[in-house]
Amino acid sequence: MKKRLNLVRDRVASHNADAALLTFLPNIQWACGFSGSNGLLLVRSNDAVFVSDGRYETQARREVEGAEVHIPGYNLYEYVEEANLLEDADTVLYQSDHVTVDRLEKLRDRFADVKWEGVSEFLTSPIASKDGEEIERIQSAQRTTDAVFEHLLDVIEPGLTEREVAAEIIYQHLRRGADKMSFDPIVASGPNAALPHARSSDRTIQEGDVLLIDMGCFKDGYASDMSRTLAIGEPSDQAFCEVYETVLKAQQSAIEAARSAMTGKELDAVARDVIEEEGYGDHFSHGLGHGLGLEIHEWPKLSYHVAHDLPEGAAVTIEPGIYLQDRFGVRIEDIVVLRENGCENLTNSPKELITIE
Amino acid sequence: MKKRLNLVRDRVASHNADAALLTFLPNIQWACGFSGSNGLLLVRSNDAVFVSDGRYETQARREVEGAEVHIPGYNLYEYVEEANLLEDADTVLYQSDHVTVDRLEKLRDRFADVKWEGVSEFLTSPIASKDGEEIERIQSAQRTTDAVFEHLLDVIEPGLTEREVAAEIIYQHLRRGADKMSFDPIVASGPNAALPHARSSDRTIQEGDVLLIDMGCFKDGYASDMSRTLAIGEPSDQAFCEVYETVLKAQQSAIEAARSAMTGKELDAVARDVIEEEGYGDHFSHGLGHGLGLEIHEWPKLSYHVAHDLPEGAAVTIEPGIYLQDRFGVRIEDIVVLRENGCENLTNSPKELITIE
Repeated sequence: MKKRLNLVRDRVASHNADAALLTFLPNIQWACGFSGSNGLLLVRSNDAVFVSDGRYETQARREVEGAEVHIPGYNLYEYVEEANLLEDADTVLYQSDHVTVDRLEKLRDRFADVKWEGVSEFLTSPIASKDGEEIERIQSAQRTTDAVFEHLLDVIEPGLTEREVAAEIIYQHLRRGADKMSFDPIVASGPNAALPHARSSDRTIQEGDVLLIDMGCFKDGYASDMSRTLAIGEPSDQAFCEVYETVLKAQQSAIEAARSAMTGKELDAVARDVIEEEGYGDHFSHGLGHGLGLEIHEWPKLSYHVAHDLPEGAAVTIEPGIYLQDRFGVRIEDIVVLRENGCENLTNSPKELITIE
Repeated sequence: MKKRLNLVRDRVASHNADAALLTFLPNIQWACGFSGSNGLLLVRSNDAVFVSDGRYETQARREVEGAEVHIPGYNLYEYVEEANLLEDADTVLYQSDHVTVDRLEKLRDRFADVKWEGVSEFLTSPIASKDGEEIERIQSAQRTTDAVFEHLLDVIEPGLTEREVAAEIIYQHLRRGADKMSFDPIVASGPNAALPHARSSDRTIQEGDVLLIDMGCFKDGYASDMSRTLAIGEPSDQAFCEVYETVLKAQQSAIEAARSAMTGKELDAVARDVIEEEGYGDHFSHGLGHGLGLEIHEWPKLSYHVAHDLPEGAAVTIEPGIYLQDRFGVRIEDIVVLRENGCENLTNSPKELITIE
């Protein structure tokens, strides 16, 4: 944590500022460890102060490293003023991609002597490169998701509704130690699987359906994310096997190619080329993947408009898909960590086509 | 929906503006019905346009009422520009309590001829007053939560962990038709119940524990929220029964007093006075309650610093609590709808002390 706070300080110095006021909670968690839902982190050249409310007193004292914990009994900003925490600061950085227009106006009113300088994507790049402990936590979350998938293969059968399977997914994650889900699980059967962001519905899973499952959890703060597509008996749509093999080949090609210091656009193109060659280019209607960590969606995106190099140590999803409207869809998704010469796959669930008999 | 859009138009007119750009999703859902996670609603004097991305095409066309649905294949703001949706607008309102500093700068760059006027709490007050259909949806969500509570009484026993009970709570809500939880359920046993915002942990529930449960779901877009406190066998802390009766009396007194056109401060004081009289005033460390609807926490708050009148038709929680550090806590929470001469209680779960034998 100390290393991370020093990195924040280096950035403050490079802006010739005196302090940074962090207000975006996942960034605060990264910098000092606090995982609750209300707080401010003020990073100054020689120290750092974390301010939260009384609900989080015990938690903040347990979690926060590298910053003094202050728990006022009232408005956090009012406290920053009354405790003179910005007394010696001329220029203070604030996160202009998270702070609202109203909040900035209030800051300017309250701290009239401070020059407030907006910074965007302030910690995006260092947060993208995960250290060993972070990778372990993502892997631990993904192991939980892998175990739930194995359990699901015994449980899923025609006659269950999508919503019942979604309930089972959540229940089994929590029973296995997940803190919560990283997003509402997608359980999309038959034609519903053709919607890339379907919601689990009351539709009953039927013999002959394609079943697309996308699920993940948070464990020790870090996210997992995995998609798999199953056949429920003999698929009623004749194109299914070809589409499945195409998506699988696209995904495997992208994983083989994935490394740091290539662009998101280049990596997206590896999978997209495979899908286009098979004639399904118009049906891969989203990007190849996204970073994840303390948030389920983090920088960098892997998509055709990302021209910058991907950072070493980034954990990203690789999730190509083909969606045939009103018929079915297939998506296969793993998490990989990008290295200079390739990538590590953190996902262990099988990818060959599984048919639920 | 049309009535709601006309209300937005009236507000636009009262600001002498030509249009309002709504960007806060729960407000968009209230105004036109869209329940997805990406979209803009532009309300002009004679029409309204809803813009979202391709993932939400089917959903938007099914849900949106009173506005034209436009689904560009790219950046929504770029589309607003290219489709000239602000061509005739001189002054446009934006939600300055939700729009970030960066976003406003981008709007100003992209639409240089528009005068952007920030509005705060733009729809807060009309959204607080629920109509009959909204009340029915909150009640339906709460009925689901009531049914889960009844089920829990058969299931909870010493030996289960808090996390296992939380998993059961989620599973049973989803099985009963909830779309998702309105917040992570709180299952806090023994000394953990003394933390008003405890997280469900791996602690095993024991004979003699106090068990505090706070849970709710979203169903058809609207939230439920309920807290109950149980005894697991004979409570080991002698003060428990007195504290329980005090909280119950405070809660019932507040429900008897609750009506519109009193202030949040006055209503909070009704419960607080009961708790202070019994000598526990320092241990009721939060406000009495909060509005709820499309969001789990909405305006108005019920607390000592709310001096405005409460609106007719507001659905609010009434949830006093007493927390004795390192010992236990008690909270009892119902949802009521405020009327001129009193309130309707939407919660049906029993409140007399229940002991799990």
